[in-house]
Amino acid sequence: MKLAVFGYGGVGKALIRLIESKKEFLQAEGLDLSVNYIVEYYGGISARDGIDLPKLIEFTAVEKDITKFDGGSKDINVDTVVAAGDVDLAVIMTPTNKETGEPGLGFIRKLLAAGINVVTSDKGPVLLAYEELKELALKNGVQLGIGCTTGGALPTINGGMMDMAGASILSIEGVLNGTTNYILKEMEESGCSYREALAKAQAAGIAETDPTLDVEGFDTATKLLILTKVHMGISRSISDVDITGITGVTQEEISHAKAAGEKYRLVGRTSVAADGTVSMKVAPERVGADNIFYGVEGKNKAVRFVSDTLGDLVLIGGASGTTPAAASIMRDIINIHRGYKFVR
Amino acid sequence: MKLAVFGYGGVGKALIRLIESKKEFLQAEGLDLSVNYIVEYYGGISARDGIDLPKLIEFTAVEKDITKFDGGSKDINVDTVVAAGDVDLAVIMTPTNKETGEPGLGFIRKLLAAGINVVTSDKGPVLLAYEELKELALKNGVQLGIGCTTGGALPTINGGMMDMAGASILSIEGVLNGTTNYILKEMEESGCSYREALAKAQAAGIAETDPTLDVEGFDTATKLLILTKVHMGISRSISDVDITGITGVTQEEISHAKAAGEKYRLVGRTSVAADGTVSMKVAPERVGADNIFYGVEGKNKAVRFVSDTLGDLVLIGGASGTTPAAASIMRDIINIHRGYKFVR
Repeated sequence: MKLAVFGYGGVGKALIRLIESKKEFLQAEGLDLSVNYIVEYYGGISARDGIDLPKLIEFTAVEKDITKFDGGSKDINVDTVVAAGDVDLAVIMTPTNKETGEPGLGFIRKLLAAGINVVTSDKGPVLLAYEELKELALKNGVQLGIGCTTGGALPTINGGMMDMAGASILSIEGVLNGTTNYILKEMEESGCSYREALAKAQAAGIAETDPTLDVEGFDTATKLLILTKVHMGISRSISDVDITGITGVTQEEISHAKAAGEKYRLVGRTSVAADGTVSMKVAPERVGADNIFYGVEGKNKAVRFVSDTLGDLVLIGGASGTTPAAASIMRDIINIHRGYKFVR
Repeated sequence: MKLAVFGYGGVGKALIRLIESKKEFLQAEGLDLSVNYIVEYYGGISARDGIDLPKLIEFTAVEKDITKFDGGSKDINVDTVVAAGDVDLAVIMTPTNKETGEPGLGFIRKLLAAGINVVTSDKGPVLLAYEELKELALKNGVQLGIGCTTGGALPTINGGMMDMAGASILSIEGVLNGTTNYILKEMEESGCSYREALAKAQAAGIAETDPTLDVEGFDTATKLLILTKVHMGISRSISDVDITGITGVTQEEISHAKAAGEKYRLVGRTSVAADGTVSMKVAPERVGADNIFYGVEGKNKAVRFVSDTLGDLVLIGGASGTTPAAASIMRDIINIHRGYKFVR
């Protein structure tokens, strides 16, 4: 299988390392992966017989500009990849503009239309155009893997799709954001304020300098929107979600909960009332020891699907970092290789 | 897709009801299921254009002998199904002899050899001959789904295979038996003895009249053996597992644990030491509120996979009963329909 990799940041680099370190494992799967293109916004690398990955890893450990590597050129972009017509699957890991989904959305459209399978970590295109992209993939006989968009290593897409195959998903709830979970745990364990816990999370590289998307609940809401669309077939937008973040959670509340043997979790939930009304909500909730989210600690995440015929399924996990994110990209590639039709 | 269903007990009947009630759902999947054979040890039913399922459901609500239904005959068996050569997939739900795996093992061999996909709930053949059956399926270009053998609705096979695709599974642990979990919860909540809790479980139809396989830990060990074989490629037999059941757990121990905010769970675990030594153990363990198995209550089950690149994944769920078991058979059928190669 010949790959084109769009985006060579932290996850892109981790994916290249993973492809190299898992070479024998993948060959045992009958999967001979060669990376024929790596593309950044300013150019890329191409190699007809596959890029020399160990050499590239060494090279880019010190050099940022990938066009300086063998086969590098400022003229390599999505159009030249499509025109060359020699890749089977493209991985899209470009930074996304959440309003427009670009540049990923445009890339994915072009690649699918050219009959190239796509696996992406990019939330924007899924949020904005999942139905359109599914149609396009179907029409061109290729697949679209989106497992990395929602929870990374935690298989929230597989879980609702493969593990619940044949069941109707009636509701979804989840602790979907690792950063807020980390901050709440820090407040609980060290007795500090929200501000102090946030500062610690930022110092540890867990929270971003502008933590708004995480702490105000938008990241959780975005993931919930994707899961609701993919697993329940219900399309809503961010303005339809009733969102409360964790910035208002006080140490006093955390202490009260702790004294009662309870903890705070930022929970996202989609449910459907008897009359068909869809309700989507993100808010901090107090959970007791018997609530399955109680044990979802620190950077972990969790999702619960309630179904008609397969009962409830809770998935907990989702190691953080670039390697698990890259491994979740790899998971989609392998499941496509194993014949699974995410799009059908 | 044309089916032959072997075994028309509780799960078999639930599967037929499910196929009928999910007809439109399945058609939306592009999956038109017709049941062409239902086979019991004493004969069966055949219908070239598919058995009339609503009529059959009504008929067998009062009549036990399926050969009395339209198209019924005492001469229908696995050999006549194979000879007719008109089914795509066979579901094997026959009672199993754990020593020999029969009659399921012989059925599965004949069906796979004839180029018929097989989905089974039968543990025996998987325990005794998984590698051989995989080879046979591969050679004949068909699939073998075993999701229902281990945990029923809880997707322990999918979880380790699809959700962890591309990762190496380093260890497996699980609360894999609903009956023992129910008994332990009963002892904890009502303060009764093991004997009393067992009697309640038997009265509720949760524990069998001879509860040995469950309460002595053999069922957990069997499931652990299957998961270890399928996900870690390690073949062991029941005598290699260090097994302690729950019959020795006293109310005093449960009370002590409860006072400390802890609970008992029957945990099965496969781990590999640094020197490669494989250790498999089943035993009751005390778990605190921060242990993820703490919240696995009553009839629920759970499994945790530890991997190299995708971190840990815990799956919790597994509704009990014939419908969820049938739904887990259906899950395999659908995932095969969606192109997934369980065997490759």
